[in-house]
Amino acid sequence: MIIVMGPGHSDEQLQAVVRRIEQMGYSCHLSRGVERTIVGAVGHKDKTPLQALEQMEGVEAVIPILRPFKLASREFKREPTIVNVEGVSIGGPEIVVIAGPCSVESEKQVMDTARAVQAAGAKMLRGGAYKPRTSPYAFQGLEEDGLKILLAAKAETGLKIVTEIVSVGDLEVLLKYADILQVGARNCQNYALLRAVGQAQKPVLLKRGMSATIQEYLMAAEYCLNEGNYDIMLCERGIRTFETETRFTLDLNAVPVLKNLTHLPVLVDPSHGTGHWRLVAPMARAAIAAGCDGLLVEVHPEPANALSDGSQSLKPIKFERLMEEIRRVAEAMGRAI
Amino acid sequence: MIIVMGPGHSDEQLQAVVRRIEQMGYSCHLSRGVERTIVGAVGHKDKTPLQALEQMEGVEAVIPILRPFKLASREFKREPTIVNVEGVSIGGPEIVVIAGPCSVESEKQVMDTARAVQAAGAKMLRGGAYKPRTSPYAFQGLEEDGLKILLAAKAETGLKIVTEIVSVGDLEVLLKYADILQVGARNCQNYALLRAVGQAQKPVLLKRGMSATIQEYLMAAEYCLNEGNYDIMLCERGIRTFETETRFTLDLNAVPVLKNLTHLPVLVDPSHGTGHWRLVAPMARAAIAAGCDGLLVEVHPEPANALSDGSQSLKPIKFERLMEEIRRVAEAMGRAI
Amino acid sequence: MIIVMGPGHSDEQLQAVVRRIEQMGYSCHLSRGVERTIVGAVGHKDKTPLQALEQMEGVEAVIPILRPFKLASREFKREPTIVNVEGVSIGGPEIVVIAGPCSVESEKQVMDTARAVQAAGAKMLRGGAYKPRTSPYAFQGLEEDGLKILLAAKAETGLKIVTEIVSVGDLEVLLKYADILQVGARNCQNYALLRAVGQAQKPVLLKRGMSATIQEYLMAAEYCLNEGNYDIMLCERGIRTFETETRFTLDLNAVPVLKNLTHLPVLVDPSHGTGHWRLVAPMARAAIAAGCDGLLVEVHPEPANALSDGSQSLKPIKFERLMEEIRRVAEAMGRAI
Amino acid sequence: MIIVMGPGHSDEQLQAVVRRIEQMGYSCHLSRGVERTIVGAVGHKDKTPLQALEQMEGVEAVIPILRPFKLASREFKREPTIVNVEGVSIGGPEIVVIAGPCSVESEKQVMDTARAVQAAGAKMLRGGAYKPRTSPYAFQGLEEDGLKILLAAKAETGLKIVTEIVSVGDLEVLLKYADILQVGARNCQNYALLRAVGQAQKPVLLKRGMSATIQEYLMAAEYCLNEGNYDIMLCERGIRTFETETRFTLDLNAVPVLKNLTHLPVLVDPSHGTGHWRLVAPMARAAIAAGCDGLLVEVHPEPANALSDGSQSLKPIKFERLMEEIRRVAEAMGRAI
Repeated sequence: MIIVMGPGHSDEQLQAVVRRIEQMGYSCHLSRGVERTIVGAVGHKDKTPLQALEQMEGVEAVIPILRPFKLASREFKREPTIVNVEGVSIGGPEIVVIAGPCSVESEKQVMDTARAVQAAGAKMLRGGAYKPRTSPYAFQGLEEDGLKILLAAKAETGLKIVTEIVSVGDLEVLLKYADILQVGARNCQNYALLRAVGQAQKPVLLKRGMSATIQEYLMAAEYCLNEGNYDIMLCERGIRTFETETRFTLDLNAVPVLKNLTHLPVLVDPSHGTGHWRLVAPMARAAIAAGCDGLLVEVHPEPANALSDGSQSLKPIKFERLMEEIRRVAEAMGRAI
Repeated sequence: MIIVMGPGHSDEQLQAVVRRIEQMGYSCHLSRGVERTIVGAVGHKDKTPLQALEQMEGVEAVIPILRPFKLASREFKREPTIVNVEGVSIGGPEIVVIAGPCSVESEKQVMDTARAVQAAGAKMLRGGAYKPRTSPYAFQGLEEDGLKILLAAKAETGLKIVTEIVSVGDLEVLLKYADILQVGARNCQNYALLRAVGQAQKPVLLKRGMSATIQEYLMAAEYCLNEGNYDIMLCERGIRTFETETRFTLDLNAVPVLKNLTHLPVLVDPSHGTGHWRLVAPMARAAIAAGCDGLLVEVHPEPANALSDGSQSLKPIKFERLMEEIRRVAEAMGRAI
Repeated sequence: MIIVMGPGHSDEQLQAVVRRIEQMGYSCHLSRGVERTIVGAVGHKDKTPLQALEQMEGVEAVIPILRPFKLASREFKREPTIVNVEGVSIGGPEIVVIAGPCSVESEKQVMDTARAVQAAGAKMLRGGAYKPRTSPYAFQGLEEDGLKILLAAKAETGLKIVTEIVSVGDLEVLLKYADILQVGARNCQNYALLRAVGQAQKPVLLKRGMSATIQEYLMAAEYCLNEGNYDIMLCERGIRTFETETRFTLDLNAVPVLKNLTHLPVLVDPSHGTGHWRLVAPMARAAIAAGCDGLLVEVHPEPANALSDGSQSLKPIKFERLMEEIRRVAEAMGRAI
Repeated sequence: MIIVMGPGHSDEQLQAVVRRIEQMGYSCHLSRGVERTIVGAVGHKDKTPLQALEQMEGVEAVIPILRPFKLASREFKREPTIVNVEGVSIGGPEIVVIAGPCSVESEKQVMDTARAVQAAGAKMLRGGAYKPRTSPYAFQGLEEDGLKILLAAKAETGLKIVTEIVSVGDLEVLLKYADILQVGARNCQNYALLRAVGQAQKPVLLKRGMSATIQEYLMAAEYCLNEGNYDIMLCERGIRTFETETRFTLDLNAVPVLKNLTHLPVLVDPSHGTGHWRLVAPMARAAIAAGCDGLLVEVHPEPANALSDGSQSLKPIKFERLMEEIRRVAEAMGRAI
């Protein structure tokens, strides 16, 4: 931490700040400039928040130097984490595509989709049985019946199951069906849920909150890691900005930023990130060129009849074309799909 | 819903759209313009999302006309909702101030604060026993021990207790101590939690998510109302923007916008909304002048030693001055504190 | 400036950084922590940007400590600047209201408005003769004919004239008519224009850019001050955020933040800041309670027929009511209008 | 335009709205729903803004249906515009790379850079001689001397010259040296400047304002087109969001959105868009995979000594590597560089 003493601060004020910092168990380095004096607080006691020194007389600002995440950082673990999901690796040289409908609606819908995306090269099937809907009046999911449909699709196609958890109370049921537990953007800072999935023996796909800074996002991952679950995957899915042509602004900058900061795999969801099917393929290609480890793509046999997210879902035929396009980009990146 | 047919659409495409809309149980009104044809879909079947019609050939855009919230709307209930908390009314002519520390840290800290804020005119005591902290390494709250301290403070001062719920699993314990259950900004769209507090017989203070649009925010309230709990209070607490001089951007525009759209009481939290104690009093005054029904203010006997949010907490003496200032503004608004 | 050396940096890298900083004319203070080494660069040579040291091996981050504005700062000038416009003071104890139409459309429109706002207590008349319109097909203003109409209104009512400059080429003409030159939000970082009005002998009302940080905004003011014009007034008018219920998000937090950082007067424009006439009065009251020195309010005799900004303009009768309301709030603040 | 009549509106209010719309020269289509009545206003008279109908009694909202840009739209011109700059085509199958320093600092700096980027495959040289700097104390550019250096570099390498115009007053000089006039992000809505370059016989590279919506951005291009200059190129360069790990948020979604809406070429500037050299190559690759027609990349022989934007500039050796990477991605897209 750097504590900046404002112009015109007195020696007494400076001494008081130094005393307080030392009481807190840090040591101090002083640096007197022409217009400011800077106090560097060295040491790291996690639970004493220096930020509140802003309240002391003469202090102009308190500036953090260290990033707060530890287990998620490249400093803690230099090698990339590779998550193994029943033989499918995420975070290694191969790029993994997870595809499927937003919501599980019926057996036929899921089966048709599963066969199509498997044939096109997807390795995992996504589909929500518990849905976090903006409106209480919207379709809320088939719950365990939906999970059973996903399992049947897995039995036939071999696709691994990625499905969302919205409540700690559903964890036990979900553990029986899911291969990857997805935590959605609206629950990115639901710390009770993060702790619960952190205690589970199951890989977690943690989506970025739509207003989570990258630092906050990594702190959310840190909650899971800190409970002992190291199979955490990140997923950029669009942030909130002023632009209204897209539903969210898919922030692909997050891909190289995250790859620099953390060892965890980074996926991208161009369907939720843009909200419009026309934009899914270009942003899927761009995500791979930016260096991501995998994609989440919404596919529905009849998007115009979907019970949720129809406007951003791809028809199977368009998904097939997308797979061809991204294969070429992956190859240009020296990777395979 | 308005469906806009793009330039160059064919008659067949238009007929297909009309047929689909009618199949979904709506009736259609056509309006042919020079450059576009517009189809108005009349009727409201809640569960069939017309948005996905964007996928049909020839369709340029699908534009919603009705706002999606019902029970929260002024159309549903014209008169303002007044929430009665053991004799203290929120949403009526009187403005209610809720004050106290961010976290319950010790009995002495809470008692000192409670006495001071009660003497200055606060009607309720805030204090977190279960804390949603960005870092898993930060102080996480005293849990039930903290609730007991709040109850002791209530016993002495008569202040009602406002405290946060972060997990459905804590609800039973919280119901024994809290007078108002607070749902924090990071849980604003945690629908499992919203449903749980909606089923409880206890007033709820629902904070706006830091990236929730006002419409999404009212839909979050709708989740609680839809479960039968009508004692819901809203609270603007800052949204995420590009500006970094403040921790968040307290969006006071939300006050008159919400007062127009909903009958629910609207409070403002200038402490979290700005993140700096120097800005709390000016924004508290402004919030009242904008027409809010109450304030949440963080007060700590020694902010520089606080375990959380020290930089935005007021010392009791500054809180007293704030109360004097806002009393004058309330009077100018024809209201009392 | 603080230069943070990353984990694992070598001594050679540190020495190279120190050498470079000293070559640039700064002196260095080293502070070695457990995980990072921090180099404080002391001295201030304005033209050598240290930020680029981020490129050197071993450097993790470069963090500025000093705010970059000088002449605009409270450190440079402790007392508030009071701008005198032909006897009307802005920045002193009295709050000044500037009112009028968005665009000058006709003599009758301006005269009707001027009489009404003067009767209600406004001290200055606003009205655009050169309009910066988003669309090249929209009404672009009456140019010098419009200025003549404003001058006629001034002759009759005594109201001072505030009008916008959109191009350096119009400066000469504007200087003949305007009492205050307004620089609009879209030109907030048009440095050629800022320099030109900085060289003029005329007070300037500089609106905040819709995505200008407060620091960038003060740097824009610094451009004018640096040319020798000290009669600069600031005006918050709404920033761009994700919220769509308002046209912009009027950022009232900027009022106390600016009052802390600068000696310049701070005004607020609740008309452009919200975009809806219903929100103008509440936000005008709030702006005054937040501590602003004046208001810009759009008034039009027939808003539904206005050639620009009709949806945010007040009818004269509503403006009169607004004046009554804000007078009471100003009084509560110990100020007069 | 769609005018939505609110719940409980009277027949008189509806009739008044219809009369007003017809007076304005539009024809009306009525569509009565269960909860709202919708009035479609058909016809397009550019100068009468219907938005202000929001002021009329009973009106709940006024919703635009048509996008306001015309000449920039795909409807106006289906085929992509290809801008020819002395034999180099932008907007065709080939992707064009423009590279060079942020500012022209010296002959040696420009010559070294020009030779390096030409050898690596760039077709054009960028470099600012007139600089729009946030601080009046920062290096402001070499002006005409800088332009002469650029011309010398062109003479030797054949690279075309892209350089920024910040003021209408500099246009005449710039026309003697520049092959493409660049309008920077801060001048994106400087309409006086847009008109001036629209009247010039010279290709224009118009950067997106950091808070310009895509619609506003296309309206800015429309200003130039409307003056008769059709050689307009667009360039995404980062928008302002809450995220602070990057200087701006490069919005690659804008690439496919713009390619859908307009026939104009779309470039991307990953240097300004991210602000950090480490992110330039990944985002350059992603931009090409998203479908852009060209790149602007900052290259400097010694970034750590650059007078501006050093932290985002690439050394020539890194630029060479970037060119290899993007060539492979371009090939995967079926394009060449």
